[in-house]
Amino acid sequence: MKKPYKLVSREFKPDNTCISVGDAVFGDGSLPVIAGPCAVESENQVLSIAASVKDAGAKLFRGGAFKPRSSPYSFQGLGEQGLKLLKKVKDETGLPVVTEAMDVENFDLIEQYADIIQIGSRNMQNFSLLRRAGKSEKPVILKRGMSAFLEEWLLTAEYIMKEGNERVILCERGVRNFIRHSRNTLDLTVVSAVKQESHLPIILDPSHAAGVRYQVVPLAFACAASEADGIMIEVHNDPDQALSDGPQSLFPEQFKAAMKKIEAIHAIVRN
Amino acid sequence: MKKPYKLVSREFKPDNTCISVGDAVFGDGSLPVIAGPCAVESENQVLSIAASVKDAGAKLFRGGAFKPRSSPYSFQGLGEQGLKLLKKVKDETGLPVVTEAMDVENFDLIEQYADIIQIGSRNMQNFSLLRRAGKSEKPVILKRGMSAFLEEWLLTAEYIMKEGNERVILCERGVRNFIRHSRNTLDLTVVSAVKQESHLPIILDPSHAAGVRYQVVPLAFACAASEADGIMIEVHNDPDQALSDGPQSLFPEQFKAAMKKIEAIHAIVRN
Amino acid sequence: MKKPYKLVSREFKPDNTCISVGDAVFGDGSLPVIAGPCAVESENQVLSIAASVKDAGAKLFRGGAFKPRSSPYSFQGLGEQGLKLLKKVKDETGLPVVTEAMDVENFDLIEQYADIIQIGSRNMQNFSLLRRAGKSEKPVILKRGMSAFLEEWLLTAEYIMKEGNERVILCERGVRNFIRHSRNTLDLTVVSAVKQESHLPIILDPSHAAGVRYQVVPLAFACAASEADGIMIEVHNDPDQALSDGPQSLFPEQFKAAMKKIEAIHAIVRN
Amino acid sequence: MKKPYKLVSREFKPDNTCISVGDAVFGDGSLPVIAGPCAVESENQVLSIAASVKDAGAKLFRGGAFKPRSSPYSFQGLGEQGLKLLKKVKDETGLPVVTEAMDVENFDLIEQYADIIQIGSRNMQNFSLLRRAGKSEKPVILKRGMSAFLEEWLLTAEYIMKEGNERVILCERGVRNFIRHSRNTLDLTVVSAVKQESHLPIILDPSHAAGVRYQVVPLAFACAASEADGIMIEVHNDPDQALSDGPQSLFPEQFKAAMKKIEAIHAIVRN
Repeated sequence: MKKPYKLVSREFKPDNTCISVGDAVFGDGSLPVIAGPCAVESENQVLSIAASVKDAGAKLFRGGAFKPRSSPYSFQGLGEQGLKLLKKVKDETGLPVVTEAMDVENFDLIEQYADIIQIGSRNMQNFSLLRRAGKSEKPVILKRGMSAFLEEWLLTAEYIMKEGNERVILCERGVRNFIRHSRNTLDLTVVSAVKQESHLPIILDPSHAAGVRYQVVPLAFACAASEADGIMIEVHNDPDQALSDGPQSLFPEQFKAAMKKIEAIHAIVRN
Repeated sequence: MKKPYKLVSREFKPDNTCISVGDAVFGDGSLPVIAGPCAVESENQVLSIAASVKDAGAKLFRGGAFKPRSSPYSFQGLGEQGLKLLKKVKDETGLPVVTEAMDVENFDLIEQYADIIQIGSRNMQNFSLLRRAGKSEKPVILKRGMSAFLEEWLLTAEYIMKEGNERVILCERGVRNFIRHSRNTLDLTVVSAVKQESHLPIILDPSHAAGVRYQVVPLAFACAASEADGIMIEVHNDPDQALSDGPQSLFPEQFKAAMKKIEAIHAIVRN
Repeated sequence: MKKPYKLVSREFKPDNTCISVGDAVFGDGSLPVIAGPCAVESENQVLSIAASVKDAGAKLFRGGAFKPRSSPYSFQGLGEQGLKLLKKVKDETGLPVVTEAMDVENFDLIEQYADIIQIGSRNMQNFSLLRRAGKSEKPVILKRGMSAFLEEWLLTAEYIMKEGNERVILCERGVRNFIRHSRNTLDLTVVSAVKQESHLPIILDPSHAAGVRYQVVPLAFACAASEADGIMIEVHNDPDQALSDGPQSLFPEQFKAAMKKIEAIHAIVRN
Repeated sequence: MKKPYKLVSREFKPDNTCISVGDAVFGDGSLPVIAGPCAVESENQVLSIAASVKDAGAKLFRGGAFKPRSSPYSFQGLGEQGLKLLKKVKDETGLPVVTEAMDVENFDLIEQYADIIQIGSRNMQNFSLLRRAGKSEKPVILKRGMSAFLEEWLLTAEYIMKEGNERVILCERGVRNFIRHSRNTLDLTVVSAVKQESHLPIILDPSHAAGVRYQVVPLAFACAASEADGIMIEVHNDPDQALSDGPQSLFPEQFKAAMKKIEAIHAIVRN
């Protein structure tokens, strides 16, 4: 059967796409870890978390300034003020920053601050946003929708690449199904399937998949043992007070301990 | 447990919201039918279909000018030209028109032409689009996302209502699951659940749920027997040549025959 | 693609299979309704319910004597004593009785009392049980597993037919997915799909699909509007005291009112 | 909320249950690997596979003599002849054998040959079979149903334990959902959830989860990095000629290479 996508396909480009950001490379067999809070909340919060995740070995910092929230009454993010705090993180720690763009309107602004622009699950098929991201000079992390087929996901990457941006990093963050003991179910086999179909790097987000802290570290170890090109983990200095995703955020010391094993597991798998 | 939504809730407004558009009322116990092709393709196509669905008893015409397509290589809709053809349909038949807005950028334009603005499943959690729709004077059909919980869906209606637009019509169009004999699975019980939780009208779309023609008419009859406040059905004068959704579109004569039974079933249920 | 089943297929037998039990015929375009409690609890209970459902127009009585319960600590049914009560129902009302066989061990016993033997969702792929049912003279209602593909379901009917029993009635009772506002989701399109693939009759069970009473009647109306060959509905004279499935059981008067509309809807659809 | 199960619960028995079979212990922090073909096909086949998986480090041999097959026309297993071949494997290699019991009728026979009796996904709620297994002296591997909630699964273990058999090993083998690039989706978070709720050991089956060979090894590495108490992997000496599950079976040399990394990953995780 003829593939419905072209630019994203392994047939079109047999070699892995490698995307360099700061010290990290996605797609070369290494396993850069992106860590940070769900949302940027304050200068003290982000600087504290950034220092600890850098010390633990994270290569990039994540934090949302514009937050897609199910409820209009939930904290919606600090907006531009949050972006400025991310800049401060970068200035102080040297860590490149990943942050989400939710719409075309704020894209220019976010582009000025972000080293990688994230498109979230809810926006996976926001085609205007995909086209705008395709015109950006910045790499894009494209999260899979909650019930997206592999083919649908790759086609959304095709939307971005078709506009000229070849630096797309796919991110699996768990799919929705009947299960109730975790928030979502991480689809690990999609990593192998993406590698077969496409040259693009793929990373994993065990935090959003699990949704509860006690499941995150074991799942992160499984991610490290997979063929993934990176891992994204939520870490918060004070999860109980977090304005979003507190229950799934690791404590900094948990993250540090986990990082040692993540690196050791990855070393075995890639030897 | 406290409800996470307010304006959409039955507690906040015990009486059904009734939304009048042309001759149709959504929410008063009647069952207006919206019919038309997936996409506006040509003047001849829309005028031909509009004449036949009007004759069959449809109260509104549907047709997409801006189409959200999984692939960037698929027909993306005629754009403004399509909107002008919708105006022609309205001028000639008197049928109000329903068409989709995919982004904030084109919202103003679509607002000029549409009698009801549709927000599609893929954009259910496009919060910028929801906020823009909330500032519109036009009623909004808000389709449920492919794997949205009832609560998530109602919260997206809350986003619209919070901006001031109280005219939201919910639309169930099938959810995604393991099943392979149909495109999606119509969740009929969500109608009862919505009516319990909310005062907003809810309509059903058997065409996108079934995804294959032979299943559409029996499913439309089931919709007529439910507590729904309307039905949306895809009809095409030449389904084999349709630029999108041909396999699930009814022939005009099929639609006409179905409408007779839809009306008769509804009469029994509402007596 | 070659079909993996033979005896169940429409290719093998183009005409609908019609199965007569008492006054009811499954497969001839009529819509016999099977009604009764989830479990047989007492003589008074079954006789009271049987009288009222017969009066309302039900053609068969249902009630479990051996109950498949998720928990070993739940009421497991009255066993043979329950079967004797079903016989009493039949003697007093003339209604044929439907009851479940859970294993090969008790099959002979159940066969003596049942007019139709039900195989439940949890046992859809209990192949020993299917083979035993295939050797029975009694018709079998074969419920679809909670996440069974159409093909898998038809193959389990093939197991029964291959042993010589051609009287298989398929029963869709809702599938499991991410949805939380109802117990299961009734897959209405499977009716059309079964009719295309197979000559066997198919009935629907809105009670187990909905799982909550307020959703059952609207769903039963939708069933009546579909192409189904029968409906099975749980009715209890005192749902609040029921030993199982009380929350989804209709009150007798609710059932009676619903039956009038079920019959009227069916008359429209089949004309 | 009160837990619906008792004997399986961590509250009832705070310490991990450890189950010893041959050299293997399930539940003590080690990671015994069970390997072998889906079905016993011939003496040469099982002896060849057994020699190679033992050499690679597997602690137990698996192979089905009675096979639950979706189609009545598929190979149904060698029956007692297959059990005798399993005995030969045990005699020659010393590896304990795991084989499936599909019904109460053949349970006595299987019990004579098996060191561990497997109850398959399709039979997870075959309550007669569970009760019979509960009266066995042999340990039981209880596979999760294709769409079973954690609670439902633990309750089926409760059925076994309630009859007196405390040696239950849970086995996650992937759940069914909308995904089409793999046969099932392995639910890794259920391992953490089981460990929290229950004292019973839990093992993982990446072969049935993936369903396609190229996905099995990466998934097995992820299993090794989880908190699981064992892994079950399908290995065949000639997968292309296998009578069942050939496409998901590893070649012996693939398995051997994988075992080295599985052991190394496990060593890191458990340190």
